Amino acid sequence: MKKVGVAILGLGVVGGGTYKILAEHKEFYKSNHNLDITVEGVLEKNRGRAIALGIDESKIAESIAEICSNPEVDIVVEVMGGVEPAKSFVLAALNAGKSVVTSNKELYCKYSHELEKAAKKNHCGLFYEASCVGGVPIIRALTDNLQGNRILSMLGIINGTTNYILTKMSNGGASYGEVLDEAKRLGYAEADPSSDVDGYDAAYKLSILSSLAFHTKVPYTEIYREGISEISPLDIAYGKQLGYVLKLLAIGKNTAKGIEVRVHPAFIKAEHPLASVNDSFNAVYLTGDSVEDVMLYGRGAGAKPTGSAIVGDIIYCATHSNFVYSPFENTEKAAPSTKFIKNFESAYYLRIVAADKAGVLSKVTSVFGKLGISMSQIIQEKENSDGAVPLVVITHETYESNINKAVAEINSAAEIAKVAAVIRVVT
Amino acid sequence: MKKVGVAILGLGVVGGGTYKILAEHKEFYKSNHNLDITVEGVLEKNRGRAIALGIDESKIAESIAEICSNPEVDIVVEVMGGVEPAKSFVLAALNAGKSVVTSNKELYCKYSHELEKAAKKNHCGLFYEASCVGGVPIIRALTDNLQGNRILSMLGIINGTTNYILTKMSNGGASYGEVLDEAKRLGYAEADPSSDVDGYDAAYKLSILSSLAFHTKVPYTEIYREGISEISPLDIAYGKQLGYVLKLLAIGKNTAKGIEVRVHPAFIKAEHPLASVNDSFNAVYLTGDSVEDVMLYGRGAGAKPTGSAIVGDIIYCATHSNFVYSPFENTEKAAPSTKFIKNFESAYYLRIVAADKAGVLSKVTSVFGKLGISMSQIIQEKENSDGAVPLVVITHETYESNINKAVAEINSAAEIAKVAAVIRVVT
Repeated sequence: MKKVGVAILGLGVVGGGTYKILAEHKEFYKSNHNLDITVEGVLEKNRGRAIALGIDESKIAESIAEICSNPEVDIVVEVMGGVEPAKSFVLAALNAGKSVVTSNKELYCKYSHELEKAAKKNHCGLFYEASCVGGVPIIRALTDNLQGNRILSMLGIINGTTNYILTKMSNGGASYGEVLDEAKRLGYAEADPSSDVDGYDAAYKLSILSSLAFHTKVPYTEIYREGISEISPLDIAYGKQLGYVLKLLAIGKNTAKGIEVRVHPAFIKAEHPLASVNDSFNAVYLTGDSVEDVMLYGRGAGAKPTGSAIVGDIIYCATHSNFVYSPFENTEKAAPSTKFIKNFESAYYLRIVAADKAGVLSKVTSVFGKLGISMSQIIQEKENSDGAVPLVVITHETYESNINKAVAEINSAAEIAKVAAVIRVVT
Repeated sequence: MKKVGVAILGLGVVGGGTYKILAEHKEFYKSNHNLDITVEGVLEKNRGRAIALGIDESKIAESIAEICSNPEVDIVVEVMGGVEPAKSFVLAALNAGKSVVTSNKELYCKYSHELEKAAKKNHCGLFYEASCVGGVPIIRALTDNLQGNRILSMLGIINGTTNYILTKMSNGGASYGEVLDEAKRLGYAEADPSSDVDGYDAAYKLSILSSLAFHTKVPYTEIYREGISEISPLDIAYGKQLGYVLKLLAIGKNTAKGIEVRVHPAFIKAEHPLASVNDSFNAVYLTGDSVEDVMLYGRGAGAKPTGSAIVGDIIYCATHSNFVYSPFENTEKAAPSTKFIKNFESAYYLRIVAADKAGVLSKVTSVFGKLGISMSQIIQEKENSDGAVPLVVITHETYESNINKAVAEINSAAEIAKVAAVIRVVT
């Protein structure tokens, strides 16, 4: 029986979930993994939280130094979130010879190069499965299963809050603001929801995942990012009518032209496996040059699903030689040879509001014709009660710059028509 | 740059796919994994196959002994299928100090205890991700990601041939025989399809997966097995009307009562993520006590998807210390303490053909009432042209033994009614 001492930094949702899983499975891990895993220390300002979990007061450390100098601690679990003090604490643990397991996507996304260097220098393990998509086993799939592939593309629903909001908006027709308020009440969204709804959380995860998938550092600063706060239930309804579901997608592509990484709301065909990933479920849909299509689906957040990923890393760390394996040179910035595509190609959904029916269609078709944009689907409704004529168009693939030009040109004749919504469409 | 020498035993579909992936990605693996992977030998009776792949004749070995004594070979890939000579060849390779990567589900299912022992004795790696569900990263998910969970249940569509046949039958209404013939013509089914259509292939995989999931050896001989050859398009159509899709499911459950493992056709609700896993796609849907629901989806077979899993294992083996890690005592038989449940509980679909409408429903309800079986859905059709009255019933959960009694009792009054089909329903 191998004794494994764990320290947990932060007893929030994930820290508490991790502690409970370890406590409830103590005998299970002894009999099935030959591991006696004990939480030897916690670092948490709110002592009440620790006591409520049943943690003995003697295990509540006063400082990171106390954790680092505790010879009973083998593995430090960092589940505090944010960059500081998490970063200093993780570096201190690694420099004290402790292996680290983290769920901190912002920290890992921004400073993996520093953490990895410290782990290698100190011959410690550094594991971060829990940093991306909760209980979905995506990191190890990329590093240990699909690493023989050129990953061509990655489509992910990797933020639970926004997927919950968009699912509710799709089902009930409520507005973004109404559903967000409900999500806050139910604890699915934070008081300040901007990290989720503005796409930062998804961008951090996409940076980590696309770096692994494309074998090169993809800094999050290279990711085009757009949130869901401008989405109207009207557009969700028109999309549905045309056979599409709206999702906040994290998209990564790797082609001969370069790497394309973006997080934004997008319509996806109702038959696509990602379209039925609802509520707080998450999924990543990958296409590799050998494996073809693979989808990994599960809970992207939550105490126990994310705790499951943490504990998986603890057991892996305890049963394998300490190991940091990067399929790419982990640097702060992208390699100079890496090319990022900013003017990407996509299909687009446009909702145009017009005063005059005959005029608007001819205006739009003439603008599209001039720019070489072709249309695949059109809905032209009868006049509204307010005299406006909604025209909904889905285009074939074109360049983002082209669509921007088309929108500007249509809007320049604002007395005829105005573009009320532009949403990218995944084909 | 680390040099890695590989030998491939068998150049069939998977062996050929593996060779092609390695050849096409040689520079990619050098630059991204710092590995120079070379195929140093192949063992294949059909020399023409090797030559057609572009393999130099000098690399075609005459015997397994030649592979084993070749100091350039580090990893032996066994993709021959079947028990012998694959088993002797794998043991010879391990005993010669070579690590082994295999896609052979029958061999691994039946003899993993012997292979694992030889690997440990010789300090070699033994990897078998490709043995189950092709490119879907399910083995490592169980051993390295979800190993901190008590896995409560596993539902899998893990055979491509039967899923192709059932998808075609569901879409077109053709008979089993017609679709099987078409599948043979297209190469989706073998000339002798019994390993697939009778559920053996799925049972081998379920044995491997449930042993890992439940942390105890689950011999394939404990798995209840029933194939798809008796399935009629009529039952698929009635199921559809009731909101179900028919799949060949591999089911594993682990409850306080014991372990339940079975492979058989089953109706699953149309909204379940597995219901839309079509054609030759496969998926495994797991529920763990911490991670909750997880689904892994992808190509369950084929040259490149399975080759992707093989190459993933080769790179893992070359970049990690040789390692055999079992989350359970790998023995030939189940541990004496393991209890298997044979008389399992399920909901059931019954199609009853009757001569007389009033009589049959009262007969069925009286039999069901006596046995405590309750009904959740009923379709009673008008008299057929041949005077028969089809009655379709879906029951609530009951014991298999109870349904067998009910069927026997209904059939005992064959002049009134006859049970034409019994299909389990996953609720």
